[in-house]
Amino acid sequence: IEAEDRSAVLLLASNLHEADTGDLLEALNAGERAAFVRLLGSEFDYTALTETDEAIRVKLLEDLPNEVIAEALGDLDSDDAVYILEDLDAQDRDEILGGLSYADRAQLKKALDYPEESAGRRMQTEFIAVAPFWTVGQTIDYMREARDLPDSFYEIFVVDPAFRLLGSVHLDKILRAKRHEKVTSIMADRLDSVEATDDQEEVARKFERYNLISSAVVDENGRLVGVLTVDDIVDVIQEEAEEDLRALAGVGDEEISDSVLTIARGRLTWLVVNLATAVLASVVIALFEDTIEAMVALAVLMPIVASMGGNAGTQTMTVAVRGLATQELGARNMMRVLNREVLVSFLNGIALAILIGITAWLWFGSPGLGYVIAGAIIINMVFAGLSGLLIPIALEKLNIDPAIASSVFVTTVTDVVGFFAFLGIAALWFGLPI
Amino acid sequence: IEAEDRSAVLLLASNLHEADTGDLLEALNAGERAAFVRLLGSEFDYTALTETDEAIRVKLLEDLPNEVIAEALGDLDSDDAVYILEDLDAQDRDEILGGLSYADRAQLKKALDYPEESAGRRMQTEFIAVAPFWTVGQTIDYMREARDLPDSFYEIFVVDPAFRLLGSVHLDKILRAKRHEKVTSIMADRLDSVEATDDQEEVARKFERYNLISSAVVDENGRLVGVLTVDDIVDVIQEEAEEDLRALAGVGDEEISDSVLTIARGRLTWLVVNLATAVLASVVIALFEDTIEAMVALAVLMPIVASMGGNAGTQTMTVAVRGLATQELGARNMMRVLNREVLVSFLNGIALAILIGITAWLWFGSPGLGYVIAGAIIINMVFAGLSGLLIPIALEKLNIDPAIASSVFVTTVTDVVGFFAFLGIAALWFGLPI
Repeated sequence: IEAEDRSAVLLLASNLHEADTGDLLEALNAGERAAFVRLLGSEFDYTALTETDEAIRVKLLEDLPNEVIAEALGDLDSDDAVYILEDLDAQDRDEILGGLSYADRAQLKKALDYPEESAGRRMQTEFIAVAPFWTVGQTIDYMREARDLPDSFYEIFVVDPAFRLLGSVHLDKILRAKRHEKVTSIMADRLDSVEATDDQEEVARKFERYNLISSAVVDENGRLVGVLTVDDIVDVIQEEAEEDLRALAGVGDEEISDSVLTIARGRLTWLVVNLATAVLASVVIALFEDTIEAMVALAVLMPIVASMGGNAGTQTMTVAVRGLATQELGARNMMRVLNREVLVSFLNGIALAILIGITAWLWFGSPGLGYVIAGAIIINMVFAGLSGLLIPIALEKLNIDPAIASSVFVTTVTDVVGFFAFLGIAALWFGLPI
Repeated sequence: IEAEDRSAVLLLASNLHEADTGDLLEALNAGERAAFVRLLGSEFDYTALTETDEAIRVKLLEDLPNEVIAEALGDLDSDDAVYILEDLDAQDRDEILGGLSYADRAQLKKALDYPEESAGRRMQTEFIAVAPFWTVGQTIDYMREARDLPDSFYEIFVVDPAFRLLGSVHLDKILRAKRHEKVTSIMADRLDSVEATDDQEEVARKFERYNLISSAVVDENGRLVGVLTVDDIVDVIQEEAEEDLRALAGVGDEEISDSVLTIARGRLTWLVVNLATAVLASVVIALFEDTIEAMVALAVLMPIVASMGGNAGTQTMTVAVRGLATQELGARNMMRVLNREVLVSFLNGIALAILIGITAWLWFGSPGLGYVIAGAIIINMVFAGLSGLLIPIALEKLNIDPAIASSVFVTTVTDVVGFFAFLGIAALWFGLPI
């Protein structure tokens, strides 16, 4: 298809939704992508780039001349343009900005000045704002004639002469109102707005909590600077939930299109940190070398104690990390949840202790070994519950993302406590050398 | 406050958003909740119940008389009413439905007939549909006069006389059009609709992919039966991402308000399944009892091999499970991802092998032990990469949710391979008894 047959490609690609075009780009091999975009020329919808992996987007933009990109970005909504520009290196970005009209350039530069992952980066600067003394009829006439409106919008805003936000009116209210009514009389009761410097995660939580479709974005003086719509927020919500999942497993923000070396390096850090944990556990075992030499069955059973604790700790930790992220877990219910987690761990500890105790007894024909492992399991399970909850909370208090760091600490606790309790109790019970 | 002082409570609670009222309900203790709702009477907004935990909602509804609930539900949008009804037991549900008007009852019953977690359960049955020959002016006049409209809406639908969906018109298009234009001339090019029986996860993916704000819901004959809005979908997206996270840690769908016994039972299943895994690993170690007795250092080091494999396997598995859930990983790129994962594991295996090999050598003063553990690490890492990817894919093929079952199998593989490789190689290298 890439034999320069423009009309065939056009026929194929022109009716696709931007998300499908994005997929098509990802499916092509690296060399074909730029050729494909060049072939389509002005028919190529650059919003498709917001639907591709970062690695593919950046590579493709490097392959295209900056003037072509600049021309295309001028037609995009500002949020899409910012999305495309933000991952480029400074030089390319400046060149592309230089190719834009003055107004577009100023707008995009301002958005790029906001911190990464802030509302200001994600917002659209195209919106409709009217004066409070306008009527519904004036507003409708204005919308019919205005140019450079956003592609679609769900509310309009009412601002004072200094552009400070007074309120918002949903489109369905305008449609249902009479032409002579004042816009202020149909404004929504609640004024939902976010600050441009707010973190996107915080903004997403607000959208979710209050079921918002769009929200005004204001600067530090309460002046309207943009609007955020829920379709951008949906991506944020998805990303943030996934970030926690990946962080718990120690897989950074790699993408499926990243290179082998990038991925390997990203994951190695985590493995090395966990190696330190594993070595610490080994040091504990080494303390009991003589004990194990005297009774090898201990070496056979000890991983069971550690792994049960590790699993129980991970369960509590997962609940705690998500509870903190969604703010369902806070100071108000912390003591209740702590009591609950300790009780849950203790109950499950007893159940597992009975099960494992009997297994060990039957396997090695020694009731004593059964008692010892049962006791160690209960101790380790309670520590698992405690550390699974308290470690994420402590990290959050220290302003460290609990999703990233918790699991190393929790498994350290459950390994160290597990091996120490099991081997220690065994040495005391059987009078073994230490 | 609960001293029956209605006016004080009213003052406090009447201006709250439903989400805040929901939080307030959760903060009250169990006995106060029903009293609070009774005290507010008709001022209580039942949509607040859609913002509380399931356990709290069900308990509160049991405490309130069914007639009161029936009266309140009549005023709600149908999706909220279904949300409140679906978790009640059949008898209460029927009694409440009996207290509704015929039209409301028929509507809710139909929605409840759709399978759980389907689009039909989440949709709103209030929407605006017009005939294709209507003009923009007629449509606006109709909206101004119609009663029982949804609280807010973002598009209207065009249907034929048999109520089959022809297209949709966004509100902003109506506002910008002239009164005499036909609605068909400003219909959106794309017709986005979902079937009422579609699974909510699939629907959410569609919203996300195509940045939808609302979508028509049609029955099997293409007739319009409802509309889904993105605020409901946002909750679905959040839930689904969290479901994967919880499933990977074996925590089921417990809620922060569930009882200790419910939670303990839910988590115990997972721990018992993992116990089987741990016992299997112990059986492998037991094969090498004599080897360990001859060289206790092996018992000290063996958890390192298993835990490095477990961590690497979890990394790959997390990427695979999310890739499958978001359909980023599929038949088209499976071989590429497999090659990549094996290569990543192998490279990290070499890095860790060097690090751990030197550590073991220095610690026990035996270069041989360094070689043995290095070899075992590389072997286990490669198996970790393979199983972390292939196990989720195989489970998905067998129609088992990979998020729920993968981690047991993956850690089984990395434990068994880890212990077997390390102890086996050591026995051969040092000529130890097995």
